[in-house]
Amino acid sequence: MAQKPSIPKGTRDFGQVEMARRNYIFDTIKGVFQLYGFQQIETPAMENLSTLMGKYGEEGDKLLFRIQNSGEKAALAPEKGLRYDLTVPFARYVVQHREEISFPFKRFQIQPVWRADRPQKGRYREFYQCDVDVIGSDSLVGELELIQIVEEVYRRLGINVCLHINNRKVLAGIAEVIGAPDKMVDITVAIDKLDKIGVEAVNAELIERGLNAEQVDKLQPILNISGSTADKLNALRIILSDSETGIKGVAELETLFGLIEATGVQLNIELDLCLARGLNYYTGAIFEVKALDAQIGSITGGGRYDNLTGIFGLPNVSGVGISFGADRIYDVLTELDLFPKKLQSSTQILFAAFGEEELRYALQWVKALRAEGMTVEVYPEPAKMKKQMGYADAKQIPFVAIVGGDEMTQNKVMLKEMESGNQQLVDMQELIKKVSR
Amino acid sequence: MAQKPSIPKGTRDFGQVEMARRNYIFDTIKGVFQLYGFQQIETPAMENLSTLMGKYGEEGDKLLFRIQNSGEKAALAPEKGLRYDLTVPFARYVVQHREEISFPFKRFQIQPVWRADRPQKGRYREFYQCDVDVIGSDSLVGELELIQIVEEVYRRLGINVCLHINNRKVLAGIAEVIGAPDKMVDITVAIDKLDKIGVEAVNAELIERGLNAEQVDKLQPILNISGSTADKLNALRIILSDSETGIKGVAELETLFGLIEATGVQLNIELDLCLARGLNYYTGAIFEVKALDAQIGSITGGGRYDNLTGIFGLPNVSGVGISFGADRIYDVLTELDLFPKKLQSSTQILFAAFGEEELRYALQWVKALRAEGMTVEVYPEPAKMKKQMGYADAKQIPFVAIVGGDEMTQNKVMLKEMESGNQQLVDMQELIKKVSR
Repeated sequence: MAQKPSIPKGTRDFGQVEMARRNYIFDTIKGVFQLYGFQQIETPAMENLSTLMGKYGEEGDKLLFRIQNSGEKAALAPEKGLRYDLTVPFARYVVQHREEISFPFKRFQIQPVWRADRPQKGRYREFYQCDVDVIGSDSLVGELELIQIVEEVYRRLGINVCLHINNRKVLAGIAEVIGAPDKMVDITVAIDKLDKIGVEAVNAELIERGLNAEQVDKLQPILNISGSTADKLNALRIILSDSETGIKGVAELETLFGLIEATGVQLNIELDLCLARGLNYYTGAIFEVKALDAQIGSITGGGRYDNLTGIFGLPNVSGVGISFGADRIYDVLTELDLFPKKLQSSTQILFAAFGEEELRYALQWVKALRAEGMTVEVYPEPAKMKKQMGYADAKQIPFVAIVGGDEMTQNKVMLKEMESGNQQLVDMQELIKKVSR
Repeated sequence: MAQKPSIPKGTRDFGQVEMARRNYIFDTIKGVFQLYGFQQIETPAMENLSTLMGKYGEEGDKLLFRIQNSGEKAALAPEKGLRYDLTVPFARYVVQHREEISFPFKRFQIQPVWRADRPQKGRYREFYQCDVDVIGSDSLVGELELIQIVEEVYRRLGINVCLHINNRKVLAGIAEVIGAPDKMVDITVAIDKLDKIGVEAVNAELIERGLNAEQVDKLQPILNISGSTADKLNALRIILSDSETGIKGVAELETLFGLIEATGVQLNIELDLCLARGLNYYTGAIFEVKALDAQIGSITGGGRYDNLTGIFGLPNVSGVGISFGADRIYDVLTELDLFPKKLQSSTQILFAAFGEEELRYALQWVKALRAEGMTVEVYPEPAKMKKQMGYADAKQIPFVAIVGGDEMTQNKVMLKEMESGNQQLVDMQELIKKVSR
């Protein structure tokens, strides 16, 4: 036989069990997005390279999958690339369709993205993102609703999480007051690693990134701020008193925590001054969600941006958004055994017939039961009992209706409950009653 | 301002109204597939070029979108291409995962495909296919269930259709009896065009494709067979009596029409001897569905194949499948105005507040109503009445709850029904009752 076919490294096939589980995650997330009035859009898998290039940093440009031009232009440089995330296509969409959109624009988007990353455990070259954004308003109600969405999604999925919040204006203020206002990005990138590499290594990296010893010293008390949210905000208000931006960030956090309290959000929320998030376009609140009972890093993240559409020529449109990591949520639900059991099989009953005439009889029943909305299969040929039962077992179908000559004469079927092995001769009404229970 | 951004030609953005309509189509189709026990799989957007090349003919190879290798291999020839259809990846999937699959394998797949075709009205470079197949059984119950699925999908969508059926063995038999057994493909490709170009042009094409005048003459009575299905089958049985293959095809059609009658299929079905379908891998029944009230060509098609997985080294696995053309179904539903009206807006009520305090009050109501499962939005800032009402209008939200100081004092809101313009002061229970009605 020829060599077994395969798929490109870093990509995956999803079989029926995985798909049922993935759809459970997507449908749960989608259901919550819709409850809040967010509406779905989709953008093409390929974007012009001019849309994508330069938006993800030098490293990102290298990770874009480029598509060769077809036909005559094949020899020229490629003009198209595969979607690398959902954020840049969203910004492009907003600018391109701004005349048709009523702002504030509440959209969600659930689509795959592609990155030419080195494949490794838990990192794929094709994976789904689930993004939800509201753009065209700088109201903190946007942040509040995203937090409520996080709460509701993880409540429905049964995952205990902690939401970490910080604010980029606070981080900018910190850079300002330690005398390194141009180093905000370097500082945030370094302190973002505090959890992973520890304070010594972070300080070393800060020096490496061009801060002097005095500036690193000045930063230490900020890394050590602790206590309740109110304590942290009070400490920050003093430390950042000379920075207008910093104080604005503190005020935003205070308002947001006020809204969180006023609306009775039950989620674990931590003001985490070491949270920075890598992406440069965030300008206000930033979020990250971690599963409490699994070691897996962030499963949701996002933040406020004031100029995302500026790169496409539409400046000063503020928005806030978050992205749910479907693959990681899948891994958490698997690890904690939280997928609902009944996802496995969708078929309620299999009809097994042992002759052509019996098969035709079975097809009548099957038709009637489907008209009642029941998910029914019929084994398509009069195969041996063992083969037909094996099929029901493999697909985890809970009931098999066996049709032989006797059953036909009585206008009944022999209903077998697969788990117990019990069999009973039933008419159609009895069957519906037993199987639907 | 910079030049407005755009997307590659032949691709599309889908806004919220289009997405709601597209999801309506996909959900309807998916619901019927599941009722019949078909389960969803997904395959990667990119396949190895070795999987794709040579499977779609020379023309198809040219229409594959090739993906450049990243990093070091960038200079070498590309090794990956974008999915061109769902059939070849399905065959690859079956062979690759044959140990895990319990046959007969009933799968469906709804994913985009990409073709570097010249874009034109109704033809896109990225479009979705909805494929349903049962593989690993040669029972005609497979054909029957696909016909029942066609009936149920179009009943649910409200589209009147006619299903055209033919059988490739009959076509092979015809080639045999006119003395051109090696010209089956040429004959089928030519007579497939009978509807479009007429009998004269078809005959000319047959000559061009290497048939002689005598063979073309012999073919004419077959092109002219008419009457009821039974009449047609009787005529064929006589004409094809010298062809074992042809007689087998007639017998398959007879059995299938018997099953169709026995199970009371209500669909318009026509035995159409001029139906050929271009693809070479069909070996038995072939189908095509046309909308009766719209001029749009085929909206669903498929057939029986006996050796699809043979190209990947697993011979003699018979299957049957059909593909629903979502874009064309969309166009038919649009043309005939058959989309349900309530798809347009998913949000049931918008809260409009005119001060920060009112906004906080509104947020309490919004939270309580969402807990009741209602789809609720709150305008995120205390903007002018006109702006907030304009937002509700644009999103076609049927109710607006207006919150001012008076309403707060009374623990009520002013509920405005947008269509009539009627306003009424209501408490929460009254609101739920009115909006849910």
